[in-house]
Amino acid sequence: MPQFSDALFTDLYQLTMAQAYFQSGQTGDATFSLYFRGFPSNRAYYVFCGLESAVEYMGGFGFSERDLAALERLGIFDGGFLDYLRSVRFTGSARAMAEGEVFFPAEPALEVSGPIIECQLLETYLVNQISLESMLAAKAARVVDAANGRQVVDFGARRAHGRDAAMKLARASYMAGFDGSSNIAAADAYGIPAVGTMAHSFISSFDDEREAFRSYARSFPDSSTFLVDTYDTVGGVRSAIAVAGEMESDGRRLRAVRLDSGDMDSLSREARRMLDDAGLSHVRILASGGLDEYAIDELARRGAPIDGFGVGTRVGTSADAPYTDFVYKLVEYGGKPMMKLSEGKVSLPMAKQVSRLFDDEGAMRRDVIHAKGMETRLPDSSAPLLGTVIERGSLTAPLPDLESARAFHAGRIAQLPRGLRGVKPSGGYDVRVAAELEGLAAEVSERLRSESGRAYSTAPDSLSRAIRRAE
Amino acid sequence: MPQFSDALFTDLYQLTMAQAYFQSGQTGDATFSLYFRGFPSNRAYYVFCGLESAVEYMGGFGFSERDLAALERLGIFDGGFLDYLRSVRFTGSARAMAEGEVFFPAEPALEVSGPIIECQLLETYLVNQISLESMLAAKAARVVDAANGRQVVDFGARRAHGRDAAMKLARASYMAGFDGSSNIAAADAYGIPAVGTMAHSFISSFDDEREAFRSYARSFPDSSTFLVDTYDTVGGVRSAIAVAGEMESDGRRLRAVRLDSGDMDSLSREARRMLDDAGLSHVRILASGGLDEYAIDELARRGAPIDGFGVGTRVGTSADAPYTDFVYKLVEYGGKPMMKLSEGKVSLPMAKQVSRLFDDEGAMRRDVIHAKGMETRLPDSSAPLLGTVIERGSLTAPLPDLESARAFHAGRIAQLPRGLRGVKPSGGYDVRVAAELEGLAAEVSERLRSESGRAYSTAPDSLSRAIRRAE
Repeated sequence: MPQFSDALFTDLYQLTMAQAYFQSGQTGDATFSLYFRGFPSNRAYYVFCGLESAVEYMGGFGFSERDLAALERLGIFDGGFLDYLRSVRFTGSARAMAEGEVFFPAEPALEVSGPIIECQLLETYLVNQISLESMLAAKAARVVDAANGRQVVDFGARRAHGRDAAMKLARASYMAGFDGSSNIAAADAYGIPAVGTMAHSFISSFDDEREAFRSYARSFPDSSTFLVDTYDTVGGVRSAIAVAGEMESDGRRLRAVRLDSGDMDSLSREARRMLDDAGLSHVRILASGGLDEYAIDELARRGAPIDGFGVGTRVGTSADAPYTDFVYKLVEYGGKPMMKLSEGKVSLPMAKQVSRLFDDEGAMRRDVIHAKGMETRLPDSSAPLLGTVIERGSLTAPLPDLESARAFHAGRIAQLPRGLRGVKPSGGYDVRVAAELEGLAAEVSERLRSESGRAYSTAPDSLSRAIRRAE
Repeated sequence: MPQFSDALFTDLYQLTMAQAYFQSGQTGDATFSLYFRGFPSNRAYYVFCGLESAVEYMGGFGFSERDLAALERLGIFDGGFLDYLRSVRFTGSARAMAEGEVFFPAEPALEVSGPIIECQLLETYLVNQISLESMLAAKAARVVDAANGRQVVDFGARRAHGRDAAMKLARASYMAGFDGSSNIAAADAYGIPAVGTMAHSFISSFDDEREAFRSYARSFPDSSTFLVDTYDTVGGVRSAIAVAGEMESDGRRLRAVRLDSGDMDSLSREARRMLDDAGLSHVRILASGGLDEYAIDELARRGAPIDGFGVGTRVGTSADAPYTDFVYKLVEYGGKPMMKLSEGKVSLPMAKQVSRLFDDEGAMRRDVIHAKGMETRLPDSSAPLLGTVIERGSLTAPLPDLESARAFHAGRIAQLPRGLRGVKPSGGYDVRVAAELEGLAAEVSERLRSESGRAYSTAPDSLSRAIRRAE
């Protein structure tokens, strides 16, 4: 497959619109707002992730000659426009929340400002990456919460949707508090601990389970975890104990056994008892195989003696909520507020800021969405969540590294109202739209509807629905 | 992010097992079988896709110096093993179904044979790509079926899980019968028609909807589709009709209008009536916005006058079934049959073939899974589904191109029993395990259980469950 730059990874309409803008001279400055419209079920907060991908993309944006040749082959773009594309770069600015931040529907996590064509061309990739990474980070945060201090690692590489998703999964889940990933490329690229031991095929290729364990322990005398369910979990634990005994006489210690099928609660209790009885209470018990936050929560609540979990498929695909309604909407053009009024898809106009209010104990109390350029009364203690990351096309400062984002995220989780946490959260969070912005939105909506030449009885309704949703 | 070869996109345990094999001299020939264990809900057939990705990977398999440096940094691999990895290539063979083939649980779609380390190292990437692409092809085939002859195009780039998934989505959905994709990189890479027109932001950036349409029509006089729901769909159709009238006086024709929100059934009827009344019966009506095969089936059944559908999020993430239980299991080692007996995960031993029987009208009647090396009585009319694609590490012949795979797939769908089709299929397909293979599986299972030193009352049950599932 020929390699294209990421600029060509876009929807055709971004480029047809760009040509129409270009040929109409409609090339003023715009602001686009990236946010999500609503929670999937069982989610009461989201975790912002993907800013690193976004700024790398914006900073390096441009079409290669190969890209331009591909566009020319489509036969709908003219030479003048293709010449313009040859030199186009992102020359605008971007404001964003920090990676690891928790955020809520209708809150802009990223706002991009600059010449409208440049901003428009970024949409597909920005939405793709930020919606993927934030969805995975939010899912992983739920798993960490359910594990309640036990170790969790990412085994999702083989079932994530493709290579890019698997890489981003490892990064997003580590940021959300996972302890490592089995994905070596991701571990090295992002500085994440690499984890993993053996598969069933390894065991079955030997004549005997114990011989397989012995062979592995010879190669990894200080870091062996034995997979015990290839034939039968209890028999496997017995084999592990036998080989662990041989290792001890060489001064080595087995690190862990891994259960991968069956009733994890009862098997972990039996394994723990057998290991303890054999004087191997230092050998840890790991569990994997179809686990997600719901299963982990259940095992943790029952007190199953499991020290760590490996999660793959269901977490790596966010199986109970495999997409989120992230959008990237025009909110200002040529200095004028813009909004969309389509049924059920109303957007809030203007470049915005989100300010967070905390209570006296430092817990999150309320967010207010307000227009960046409009005065809004806020308590002194409120903190703005969006900061400038790109100015005139360049990064204003290096982004926090992954460890810092991970620490920042953990701090935010500690500040979350308790009712938002858990696998089936009971509460909602108070997000308000500032009265000034609400008033402006009503005004813009009125103007747009009268300009489009008809009075719509549904208009005030759908607008107020959008604002209620944000509250 | 540093760029690694795809060899490093793997789970750590593939390499720890490889080192243990290497150091134990356990380096004989193996066969691994790739198949899926069971259908997600509402699926009664799957569509094999991803062979092109698989053979590209196998053919180019190898570790770069950069990969080896990353492995060395992990501190658990020794120099001799890393030297071995430096020169490792895939030197074995692969047999596979053709892309576009329909297949069923327990049927191997790909079998890989060769030195065990080489075969083992391929697992993560092969499972990742084939499970993604086959899941997407199966989902897209359902959409094509529901659309019942109407055009369907892929708008999924922004919500697919990352860049790789979006590229594979465009390819898999085209193979399954879609008519195009909005993803330009994919369209050019795979030779798929690129489609797309304008977004709401384009309309809102102009003072007036008609001015936006006019501007677009000036840039694309022969290929304009107007998006009509930015402010209000009926008003938008009225604007489209006005601008289409202006175009007609210049000898140009508007191609289509696109509905993107609201009640598609009633809006499409109203739009059709308005267009027809204005003498614009050649203007087509396209629909998009949260559509999937369920919504399309409903609209098609009601007879909504929609000529084409754009599908994105729900199809691109296979939202109702976002993963499939694809596995890659050791079935032979050193000439001996191998199988896994873990609870609920029993595999069938030996390199296998799947033979398909057809009835007199050419419809698919039954599949038989049999051991490749064992005699099995089959009717003369049966056709083997797996053919050799790689021998001694090299492609035996170029794979069929995407258009051929698409045509082959369409032919297979025409041969599917009617009960397997539709959004909620009513029937199942007859897949049998040959008696000889079933006997061998029982024998191997017996031997493995007695070797692992304990009699298990659950064993025959879980084995027969696996075989029943295949029937």
